[in-house]
Amino acid sequence: MTEIQIAQSVTPKHIKEIAAKLAIPEEKLEYYGNDKAKLPLNIIDDEKVKTNNLILVTAITPTPPGEGKTTTSIGLVDALNILEKKAVAVIREPSLGPVFGIKGGAAGGGWSQVIPMVDINLHFTGDFHAIEKANNLLSALIENNIQSKSRSLGIDPRTVVWKRCMDMNDRGLRTIVAALGGKAGGVPRETGFNITAASEIMAILCLATDLEDLKEKCGTIYIGDTWQGKPVFAKDLNAEGAMAVLLKDAIKPNLVQTLEGNPAIIHGGPFANIAQGTNSIVATKMGMSLSDYTITEAGFGSDLGAEKFMNIKCRAAGISPKAVVLVATIRALKYHGGKSLKEITQEDVEALVKGLPNLDGHIASLKSFGIPIVISINAFQSDTEAEIQVLKDHCEKLGNPVALSYGWEKGGKGCLDLAEKVIKAADSCTSQFHPTYNLEDNVHNKMEKICQTIYGGEHVVLSDIARSQLVKYEVMGFGNLPICMAKTEKSFSDDQKRLGRPKNFDIHIREFEIAAGAGFIVPIAGNMLRMPGLPATPAAERITIDKNGVIEGLF
Amino acid sequence: MTEIQIAQSVTPKHIKEIAAKLAIPEEKLEYYGNDKAKLPLNIIDDEKVKTNNLILVTAITPTPPGEGKTTTSIGLVDALNILEKKAVAVIREPSLGPVFGIKGGAAGGGWSQVIPMVDINLHFTGDFHAIEKANNLLSALIENNIQSKSRSLGIDPRTVVWKRCMDMNDRGLRTIVAALGGKAGGVPRETGFNITAASEIMAILCLATDLEDLKEKCGTIYIGDTWQGKPVFAKDLNAEGAMAVLLKDAIKPNLVQTLEGNPAIIHGGPFANIAQGTNSIVATKMGMSLSDYTITEAGFGSDLGAEKFMNIKCRAAGISPKAVVLVATIRALKYHGGKSLKEITQEDVEALVKGLPNLDGHIASLKSFGIPIVISINAFQSDTEAEIQVLKDHCEKLGNPVALSYGWEKGGKGCLDLAEKVIKAADSCTSQFHPTYNLEDNVHNKMEKICQTIYGGEHVVLSDIARSQLVKYEVMGFGNLPICMAKTEKSFSDDQKRLGRPKNFDIHIREFEIAAGAGFIVPIAGNMLRMPGLPATPAAERITIDKNGVIEGLF
Repeated sequence: MTEIQIAQSVTPKHIKEIAAKLAIPEEKLEYYGNDKAKLPLNIIDDEKVKTNNLILVTAITPTPPGEGKTTTSIGLVDALNILEKKAVAVIREPSLGPVFGIKGGAAGGGWSQVIPMVDINLHFTGDFHAIEKANNLLSALIENNIQSKSRSLGIDPRTVVWKRCMDMNDRGLRTIVAALGGKAGGVPRETGFNITAASEIMAILCLATDLEDLKEKCGTIYIGDTWQGKPVFAKDLNAEGAMAVLLKDAIKPNLVQTLEGNPAIIHGGPFANIAQGTNSIVATKMGMSLSDYTITEAGFGSDLGAEKFMNIKCRAAGISPKAVVLVATIRALKYHGGKSLKEITQEDVEALVKGLPNLDGHIASLKSFGIPIVISINAFQSDTEAEIQVLKDHCEKLGNPVALSYGWEKGGKGCLDLAEKVIKAADSCTSQFHPTYNLEDNVHNKMEKICQTIYGGEHVVLSDIARSQLVKYEVMGFGNLPICMAKTEKSFSDDQKRLGRPKNFDIHIREFEIAAGAGFIVPIAGNMLRMPGLPATPAAERITIDKNGVIEGLF
Repeated sequence: MTEIQIAQSVTPKHIKEIAAKLAIPEEKLEYYGNDKAKLPLNIIDDEKVKTNNLILVTAITPTPPGEGKTTTSIGLVDALNILEKKAVAVIREPSLGPVFGIKGGAAGGGWSQVIPMVDINLHFTGDFHAIEKANNLLSALIENNIQSKSRSLGIDPRTVVWKRCMDMNDRGLRTIVAALGGKAGGVPRETGFNITAASEIMAILCLATDLEDLKEKCGTIYIGDTWQGKPVFAKDLNAEGAMAVLLKDAIKPNLVQTLEGNPAIIHGGPFANIAQGTNSIVATKMGMSLSDYTITEAGFGSDLGAEKFMNIKCRAAGISPKAVVLVATIRALKYHGGKSLKEITQEDVEALVKGLPNLDGHIASLKSFGIPIVISINAFQSDTEAEIQVLKDHCEKLGNPVALSYGWEKGGKGCLDLAEKVIKAADSCTSQFHPTYNLEDNVHNKMEKICQTIYGGEHVVLSDIARSQLVKYEVMGFGNLPICMAKTEKSFSDDQKRLGRPKNFDIHIREFEIAAGAGFIVPIAGNMLRMPGLPATPAAERITIDKNGVIEGLF
């Protein structure tokens, strides 16, 4: 069965039944069909947040097919529910753009999925669309002010750093010259689009504590300078009120269900390589208010998602996980051991052993946070007894609990061992996480600490452009913000070809983007792009729907 | 009270109660909150469509504040319900872009509104967003194919006529150079964005009979030529399946309610000046399947919306209205009589008389369709007895029934006279509408007939570019398509300064756009733009939301 066939083989429960499991009164639900609902922010209970067991699911350096973080997260929630624990998944919304590229859906896999899977992967409840509109309203207001004779702020069009966004893998929008066509068309300037998940509005939505905070953060977005060199913010254009109106529903988390009928809250952005990449603070806190165990995930390897989860999100929210689940697959470790994608389904203990340093690197990074770690081996049918034994022995030698997880094949039943080890780990957790850097460190030091502690690298090297940008941003008073690194997800380093656990490398920062509203600095490492393109054979070509509404080729 | 205060003073009924009025079973409803629902296409009953009384509401040449077509449509539906007729409004979805410009909402006014008014004017059920994504997916696939080495169709980037779209008044996107930034960014070319309501996908959604037809129409979109001059269609990129998947929910009409709790179906696109400007065929047929009287509207003056309603929509759908309501206001007629916006609230019978030829022009145009006409004077407090009498006498002298309507002030109670006259007119209707032109006429003749019969002008004059485009499109076999004129809404002519009933003018066609998928040719008259800009003081600056979710400044 394909993912979509499995997803559609289960009849979803009415979402009010799922809400009832969490003791949410029906009148608090805002239905989107029978299987999706938005939840109001007043469900958040700060007292309950303090005592909840927050569990972060992260992974080793991912390989092209993905390691199964979402699958593991869903399987773990279902397993905890089997063990009669009140557990909820709080995960990220998929981006529409990649659905038409290579990746396909992002709603778990096999028997560990969230449903309605098609809707979740397409428009869902419209959150990304609302983010896009708020982002692009600000762009239109900027363009309009530059054009204005009577009410001009004197914005120097050459300095505008605010970009438009679109949730589409469209390389043609990465760099454009806009506002052509003569006087009525505006003042021509070079600009571009980011993919919506990478927009600052997504980050603001994910980091805001409520609608008022969101509006204020929108107002403090830095957009560029006047001809006199004075910085201009969104509030100078009176933009934040209308932006907040556009986001009034998007800020509310979305309730759906796992295939086993357990609650899942989905809200906020993916793409931990080019964005902060964790779900929203309000969704996480809501999950923590409604359960005893809150399972959340952060994108790509622990060097990206987990690092940002701790240093940006947990710090901002005042929360801390009780355990971290590190997902690994035997086939991925063989890939890091030098095998090709075609070869990794054949038994190869030697390649596996060669790939183990990647796992070790992630364990070392995660240890720096001081939170208990559980390793979850996401099982595949191609895994052999010999390989499994070698991996288990290795993990145990390092002193880490390790569980074999069969979420894809068996759902919650396949993750009971993992669930038990997670419960034990969370019980043993006695402290808050240790951040990698202090906010008071200067920006270069903060980046160096991430590079050394998390990536295992040497130094951070700035391009000439990046160096002058950094001077400017520090003078502007942004030096105390946390760091949101844009770096390849395919390596600890900034070179995607360096698999395993690379050593003796520097991180090269090409340029900085500043997210003054969201509250972080984005150093862009290597050749990272914040607007992807489509592959030579896009998935879109295979996707279709027949007259009965049956969809093919989506996943 | 402001529009928004009136709208929020009424507690909406649960949408299932509204559905029950139309005898729609609850299990057919797909809820979006408690006050909005999507309706499945299988509600359409072709037998009932044949016998229904379809009423079109149109208007004289509009002035900046608008004449109140939607207000009249809602008031008429409420009045018909008071008279115990089964009546439903089937109207257009507002565009988000203008909400942040000058116009404000488009959900009726005063006590004749549809609710939830804020949602309807913002994201509603996401239809515009879905249209935008389907449109822009095609753009991304075009860009990707031009970039492709292995699977290139050989598209000549200079010939690509397909534009991206965005539902935002952003003049900076009107003309752009895209795909800059070197090899990875694509092949640079000049292109642009239309506002979403003006996109061909909106027209396809409005003209499709079902999802299968929509998919097929998406496939026949013409996008440009190969280097060898061969036309390329969306189906050559295998785009139509994924586009249809994105539109699978957007094609379903949306059920909401009037302030008086009567049913309103809202679906499909506005902007009859730059698009086809009527709601969807499926929504209209659905309304006709569920009621005895279906009140619909078409944008701007009868020269634009009504002409396209008849010649494009009714022809395609095989339907015909039983009566046309022509909305006029005394203040607008004074404006056409030469008074300024400030002066039209003062009594001025002479100016009113001078403005009457505009009304006469619309009556003459509408008479050409052979359908009974009822004139509705949308009453304002500034109207005086003397003015009302002059206008009534004039209409009656012409042999037209005329009603004073107080929908804004009194809701349905204020439109009872109109409702009675509409019932009588519909009862008297004995024939189908007469189209303005035959599809077999050549394109130039079709335009000439519109110019002469509808606009009261002389001839259609093509620019050199338009002439060569027309030769090309006729050779390509598009000569039999209907015409969807893009012309200013402010005048019968293509010069927005010529108010009243201009004479002795030609219509100047600057260029053509071809909508091969939707199935019409778009001649662009004068200096019409299909992507608006924001005004010097955009409404966005006044709009805000407080921490309790109370919105200010929206309308």
